Amino acid sequence: MLHNNLLQPSSIAVIGGSDHLDHLGGSVLKNLLDQEFKGDLYVVNPKKDEVQGVKSYRDASLLPQTDLAIIAIPAQEIWPVIEELIKSKGTRGFIIFSSGFGELNKEGRDLERKITTLISSAGGSLLGPNNIGMINRHYAGIFTRPLPVIDKKGVSFISGSGATAVFTLEAAQQIGLRFSNIFTVGNSAQLGAEDILEHLDDTFRQGESSLVIMLYLESVKNASKLLEHAISLRRKGCSIVALKSGVTDKGNAAAASHTGAMVNSDLFVQALFKKAGIIRCYSRYELITIAAILQATQQKPKRFAVVTHAGGPGVILTDTLTQNGLSVPDLSVAHQNALKQLLYPGAATANPIDILATGTADQLEKVLDYCERDVKEIDAVIVIFGSPGLGTVTEAYKVIHQMAQRSSKPVFAILPSVVNVREEISNFIKKGNLAFNDEYLFGTCLAKVMENSVPSGQLFKIKPKQYSNIRTLAREFPNGFLQADQVYAILQAAGIRCAQQQVVSTETELLKISGSLNYPVVQKVVGPLHKSDIKGVIIDVTNVSDLLHNFRKLKKIKGATAVLIQEMIKGKEIFTGAKREAGFPPLILCGAGGIYVEALKDSESSLSPITRKDAVEMVSKLRIKPILDGMRAEAPCNLEALYEVLQKVSELMESIPEITELDINPLMLNEDAAIAVDARIKIEKQDENTL
Amino acid sequence: MLHNNLLQPSSIAVIGGSDHLDHLGGSVLKNLLDQEFKGDLYVVNPKKDEVQGVKSYRDASLLPQTDLAIIAIPAQEIWPVIEELIKSKGTRGFIIFSSGFGELNKEGRDLERKITTLISSAGGSLLGPNNIGMINRHYAGIFTRPLPVIDKKGVSFISGSGATAVFTLEAAQQIGLRFSNIFTVGNSAQLGAEDILEHLDDTFRQGESSLVIMLYLESVKNASKLLEHAISLRRKGCSIVALKSGVTDKGNAAAASHTGAMVNSDLFVQALFKKAGIIRCYSRYELITIAAILQATQQKPKRFAVVTHAGGPGVILTDTLTQNGLSVPDLSVAHQNALKQLLYPGAATANPIDILATGTADQLEKVLDYCERDVKEIDAVIVIFGSPGLGTVTEAYKVIHQMAQRSSKPVFAILPSVVNVREEISNFIKKGNLAFNDEYLFGTCLAKVMENSVPSGQLFKIKPKQYSNIRTLAREFPNGFLQADQVYAILQAAGIRCAQQQVVSTETELLKISGSLNYPVVQKVVGPLHKSDIKGVIIDVTNVSDLLHNFRKLKKIKGATAVLIQEMIKGKEIFTGAKREAGFPPLILCGAGGIYVEALKDSESSLSPITRKDAVEMVSKLRIKPILDGMRAEAPCNLEALYEVLQKVSELMESIPEITELDINPLMLNEDAAIAVDARIKIEKQDENTL
Repeated sequence: MLHNNLLQPSSIAVIGGSDHLDHLGGSVLKNLLDQEFKGDLYVVNPKKDEVQGVKSYRDASLLPQTDLAIIAIPAQEIWPVIEELIKSKGTRGFIIFSSGFGELNKEGRDLERKITTLISSAGGSLLGPNNIGMINRHYAGIFTRPLPVIDKKGVSFISGSGATAVFTLEAAQQIGLRFSNIFTVGNSAQLGAEDILEHLDDTFRQGESSLVIMLYLESVKNASKLLEHAISLRRKGCSIVALKSGVTDKGNAAAASHTGAMVNSDLFVQALFKKAGIIRCYSRYELITIAAILQATQQKPKRFAVVTHAGGPGVILTDTLTQNGLSVPDLSVAHQNALKQLLYPGAATANPIDILATGTADQLEKVLDYCERDVKEIDAVIVIFGSPGLGTVTEAYKVIHQMAQRSSKPVFAILPSVVNVREEISNFIKKGNLAFNDEYLFGTCLAKVMENSVPSGQLFKIKPKQYSNIRTLAREFPNGFLQADQVYAILQAAGIRCAQQQVVSTETELLKISGSLNYPVVQKVVGPLHKSDIKGVIIDVTNVSDLLHNFRKLKKIKGATAVLIQEMIKGKEIFTGAKREAGFPPLILCGAGGIYVEALKDSESSLSPITRKDAVEMVSKLRIKPILDGMRAEAPCNLEALYEVLQKVSELMESIPEITELDINPLMLNEDAAIAVDARIKIEKQDENTL
Repeated sequence: MLHNNLLQPSSIAVIGGSDHLDHLGGSVLKNLLDQEFKGDLYVVNPKKDEVQGVKSYRDASLLPQTDLAIIAIPAQEIWPVIEELIKSKGTRGFIIFSSGFGELNKEGRDLERKITTLISSAGGSLLGPNNIGMINRHYAGIFTRPLPVIDKKGVSFISGSGATAVFTLEAAQQIGLRFSNIFTVGNSAQLGAEDILEHLDDTFRQGESSLVIMLYLESVKNASKLLEHAISLRRKGCSIVALKSGVTDKGNAAAASHTGAMVNSDLFVQALFKKAGIIRCYSRYELITIAAILQATQQKPKRFAVVTHAGGPGVILTDTLTQNGLSVPDLSVAHQNALKQLLYPGAATANPIDILATGTADQLEKVLDYCERDVKEIDAVIVIFGSPGLGTVTEAYKVIHQMAQRSSKPVFAILPSVVNVREEISNFIKKGNLAFNDEYLFGTCLAKVMENSVPSGQLFKIKPKQYSNIRTLAREFPNGFLQADQVYAILQAAGIRCAQQQVVSTETELLKISGSLNYPVVQKVVGPLHKSDIKGVIIDVTNVSDLLHNFRKLKKIKGATAVLIQEMIKGKEIFTGAKREAGFPPLILCGAGGIYVEALKDSESSLSPITRKDAVEMVSKLRIKPILDGMRAEAPCNLEALYEVLQKVSELMESIPEITELDINPLMLNEDAAIAVDARIKIEKQDENTL
């Protein structure tokens, strides 16, 4: 819960407010005044009685009761001020711009912790330190510019970086994107991006709250909280788009050195966003373009008319849309004939509809009207309209504005002449419109929006299974990779079928069992790790004589302690696995198995818990899926068995926290069953208390 | 050869020149005047004696001798004017803006052809019709705006679309990209993009000509010409970046409806660009960003320092570079300590080097100096410097400007504050600098530039082989797919090893050969096309009794005419193929074979002729490559045998033009050899004369 003093303060004190507009305290004061904060405004400045026309107190102790403090004084001077405000002034909202805290050194980290504890224990809310502030309909508590156009229906923006937020707002202003509120969390000493998301979820009001949330994150600190509230917001009708930097290892290092943030490997983030129904992007321009598309319409159009007065960009856009799974359907001959009546000879009407460079605003209007009213096979219209630098576009932009306002089908405008008609584009935007300028960026973003879907069902939670024997075993196993028989025991307990196997150490033992074996069998060396690499696996053994011969050969391998005899299972080689990372649910993987794991890199992953639906989705995205379905005359594999294994691996990971890594490779999948043929499990025991 | 009258006219007549700046003829006249054309300028306008201060003639016949005519009158009025100019005025350069030609209808196409023939027969050069003109150091024969900054060292731009050219020039102006010349080809009645490229190649002068060529194409009309001159220019030190639209089938349709252009499937284009060493991009913004990077430096830096005053964009850029194969290496402790001395506490020095929001221009200068002079592990520096809207960036931009001018290592500037410091960015650009604004776009483009390489060697040409028997055969075969024995004969003649096989129709025949077979063998039904789908292939047949049993089964399949007995070859299944498309050399393909062809879509292609180097490159990019190299304990396949097959397929396609399609699938590749096990060849005979 964010304290209302932070969200809707009736009084604000700028600690360190000044007349220098280049200083943080001076700049935020100007923004508060420019944005016309309606409550009481104070400044604390030891040298002034008035700053920018606002009453200034020489010391915080002299302040009247104050809801919110915006702090822009050096880190080392902050502690007594906060103590005073908490204890005597009823202040419960805090924004700290100052740096020199956790991102700097240990002293800073300690001070940050001390301040956070004080504010938290008083029930207050702290944004920062080391941020640029926040802005909403009530006040502009931000020291940077440009100030965005604040619009109740605008986008909510949560940013983990101040500079990125500024540059994003600048880019947003150029396309006309509006904002309802912006939060920058800086070091996230108390409130992180996840907490702001929770706040947006908790305070969401249908028909009133913003339906688009934009995130810039450098780390994910609480994946479960993010997941819970993202899914909840998605199910309330919100869309979320996120730019998460620190993608690569190198990028991660940079992110860590930047904010001292905890780092997550990117696959977990990818799976998290997928599960949460968050659209992921990789650049600031993608971020605002996707947010703008989401803001423009709640509809999910798939079939587009491209109306252009210039061939080239129309073709580029058509390429982009169709290559990304959207449709620019050919219009029927009847429609084309009708359109030809409206246009000059030579106009293209198949879609893209090219009204020609000489096409008029009046023709444009008629075409847009026709597309809306008569062309049932079209869900939305994209208009491309620039200027070669002669003639005027004012009338055409008026037409697009009117259509964007009144059309029942979404109308998007791509206005590429960012130099020739800069002024006209600016006027178009001022009327509340969005104006994109790059047809390729727009097309790729549109496709990302349209392929995104609301997570189905409530967040499914697995009740940990008891596996009573295994639970006890897991506590007893030493850390590290388990022995083959231990792995076998765990998989069996989890309900995952394993190939029948026996371990023999001597020739006598071997001969004793040789009569009861179900030939052909497989022989594998026990001891060394990468068995195939050292010719430690012999398949298709059909008789006792070969069995004995192979046994002797395998026992000679360096490190060999015994030989495993396993039933030989036919089928397609699948790989399934699981990995744990702090702060995240376990990640479950599935892909092409055997030696193909490394070569084909054909794998999909999803965060636990895995429902049958999740399993189906993972498998459906594998490139080897058609092979599992049975190509040519082959019988299809039992995919249900595979889905079950994936769910059981998920259950196992949720139930036995000591398992940090699990690989089943190969899992043999055939017409009948999915059978684990080789597997590895790594144990890392945690504190007893955390179990 | 482009006529000099088009390139460096000493006199220009604007046919249809007027005082209306919104009309093509008025606008181009203004541009010629604004850009200060040094020669004689005339206008032909039936109603005026003077237009925009320029002498106007009431009729073309009254003109003095004129090198170049720029024509902006309706299509139907053009013919007599051109006749007059060619016959009486010595005019040999023509730019026709007017539309209403080939892009409109048959009459237009005929008129276009008639005009082109007249101009060509007089040895003249024609640009257009239906274009926006051209611009070089001598004159601005273009009717659109903005006029680019013309700079001898700027980019050469050839565009297949006028509007795209305009929008590209607008975007280019925003980042400071300069141009040496721009050609727009419109309908390409006489001069197409390939001809302009040839011209740039023929007239290339080391140290004088532009080293960067930018192409926007909607079709490739002459792949061989494009290939020849692109390779030649690349080997002279030029770089070429191209945006080719009409990528998808739908996109193709749009391109075709736009200019009536001939359409090529995209794989051919992709292979063409690869062979020619052309960097391919997909948007206007990519096009100018890549061109700008190419213009900025001839060096090929791989290791970058990212110097930033804002963490977020630094991380995004680092992500982008490292994910795209470039390096942002960690700096040594010694370097970091040295940098720390230069910066405020808390600055990050590992690389990205974050000089903090409070970092000064002086610190920036010292860091850039240090990176250039002392950090050997860095080849180039990227500076990110925006503004939160307070303070000034003037000094910092001065520092970047000076470093960009004097540094021995390339210095790139990303200036993201497109609103807050628009003016300062504009001033920075006016000094001749480039200013990028999107770190992600910049990073992806930089990677494309750095991975591009000059095609090695001269364009290799295959002398068609005689294959005397096959040559004759190919003429006799009917069109369509060949019979198995014909395919076998052709592959054998081409030197491609095939599995030994015999076709038997009766049980008697079968029994006769059964004794001499080298078991195990494979039996395949003859007749039906997709044999595996109908259980028409039986492998691993080890004895006569099974052979007979299978024969009877196979003969019962609908459409079966006989049974093929083939030696059973072990190995990895490979697919190789070839396809022909009008206007292009044959395309040679190679990939994962067998039933995996469709499932894995793991294939690479290259335009014929294929050298060993081409074959090596194709195979090296396959995902299954590690499998061919021998994974785990497996022996490596004989890759040389595969490379040879690819070259032989290429030879075959070059030698026998009747083959339009060829598939070898599977080609079994093992330790010893590459052996064709199944293959299809499609014949389409051409006119005797074309052979």
